[in-house]
Amino acid sequence: MKKAVILLSGGLDSATILYDAKRKGFTPYCLIFEYGQRHCKEIEQAKMIARRARCHYQAMKISLPWHGSSLLDKKMSLPRQGKIDTKKIPSTYVPARNIIFLSFAVSYAEAIGARAVFIGANAIDYSGYPDCRPEFFKAYQKMLAKGSKTGVEGKMVRVHTPLVRKTKAQIIKMGLKLKVPYHLTWSCYQGGRKPCGKCDSCLLRARGFDAAGMKDPVI
Amino acid sequence: MKKAVILLSGGLDSATILYDAKRKGFTPYCLIFEYGQRHCKEIEQAKMIARRARCHYQAMKISLPWHGSSLLDKKMSLPRQGKIDTKKIPSTYVPARNIIFLSFAVSYAEAIGARAVFIGANAIDYSGYPDCRPEFFKAYQKMLAKGSKTGVEGKMVRVHTPLVRKTKAQIIKMGLKLKVPYHLTWSCYQGGRKPCGKCDSCLLRARGFDAAGMKDPVI
Repeated sequence: MKKAVILLSGGLDSATILYDAKRKGFTPYCLIFEYGQRHCKEIEQAKMIARRARCHYQAMKISLPWHGSSLLDKKMSLPRQGKIDTKKIPSTYVPARNIIFLSFAVSYAEAIGARAVFIGANAIDYSGYPDCRPEFFKAYQKMLAKGSKTGVEGKMVRVHTPLVRKTKAQIIKMGLKLKVPYHLTWSCYQGGRKPCGKCDSCLLRARGFDAAGMKDPVI
Repeated sequence: MKKAVILLSGGLDSATILYDAKRKGFTPYCLIFEYGQRHCKEIEQAKMIARRARCHYQAMKISLPWHGSSLLDKKMSLPRQGKIDTKKIPSTYVPARNIIFLSFAVSYAEAIGARAVFIGANAIDYSGYPDCRPEFFKAYQKMLAKGSKTGVEGKMVRVHTPLVRKTKAQIIKMGLKLKVPYHLTWSCYQGGRKPCGKCDSCLLRARGFDAAGMKDPVI
């Protein structure tokens, strides 16, 4: 069976792509990153989701001691305006996060002979991160063609971004059809006992469930 | 003063770019990776070189548990043909290594406000790794323009590859002018007490010192 490396964060989007990859006939190999994020709660949720989907997972601990993000640095406060301005990159941007995650995923894929990497990035209902946009993934793929063994040898690892142009509501509807266990997902950046309801991630999630006409099972 | 992140491996090339960056007026911030390499000896040498150059350094431990390389997997044997075939990518290729290293370097650079990353890659006297060639770095830079905050905001981190088109002899001659402490550098993949003299890395180094008409201070 064809293998795929899945970047699994424990959030709604990445849980959806895991089930999407399964539906497409891939055997998923999940990568879960602990990178010093405030909401480290998502890591345990990601593991639960992987176990629920009965697939391999690999938890990776990486250190970004330079921070440069309110998602890593607890001395910085999270933006809480209650509205999201996608024209400005918010302080929760983690420098080169998706570039780093994808690079580990490609390494893993090359080593196990997988030709696919799935990432749940989304450039519609999102926070304005540059590393979530289609033009980034296109450039990343071109870079792989030049700088990876499989790229040079014509058996390139392909980065799949099935959600990149979907609205959050479309993602949720797709996931419900795939029976994604959304009650296990975690989105809130605060990582408290309950979602804060105010951070960008909570707002995007709430907006998505509203537009899909569904109740969020986590709340 | 302008800052630069330097990927410092402890080898001859990366020591040379550290001194080159200093000469060019940069304040170096070295990144040293422990990634499970056989020749972990190079890590201590890298730290010595950074201290000798009186600059900041950050040692990073990353895990690549999937191996996929004879440089990581001690059950695999290193190629020892005594000659290097740059047409074939050797088993010492580490999947996506430079892509991962550069990605951490860019993250560090963005967080500290550095606009430069230096990497000592070389595509002349090298082992045929795809992630050491100019076309890779060109594509990597284009990817940064699309996927990083500084890229999108027009203050992009630039990847400097001052050695990429130089012969090993030219690198050594350049380094001697810069007073690079080559006696502190380590190249051998085996990482024993003394260099093995047979691995690709030893061969390239010996060939370089020969062509430069110099004696290798490590031997």
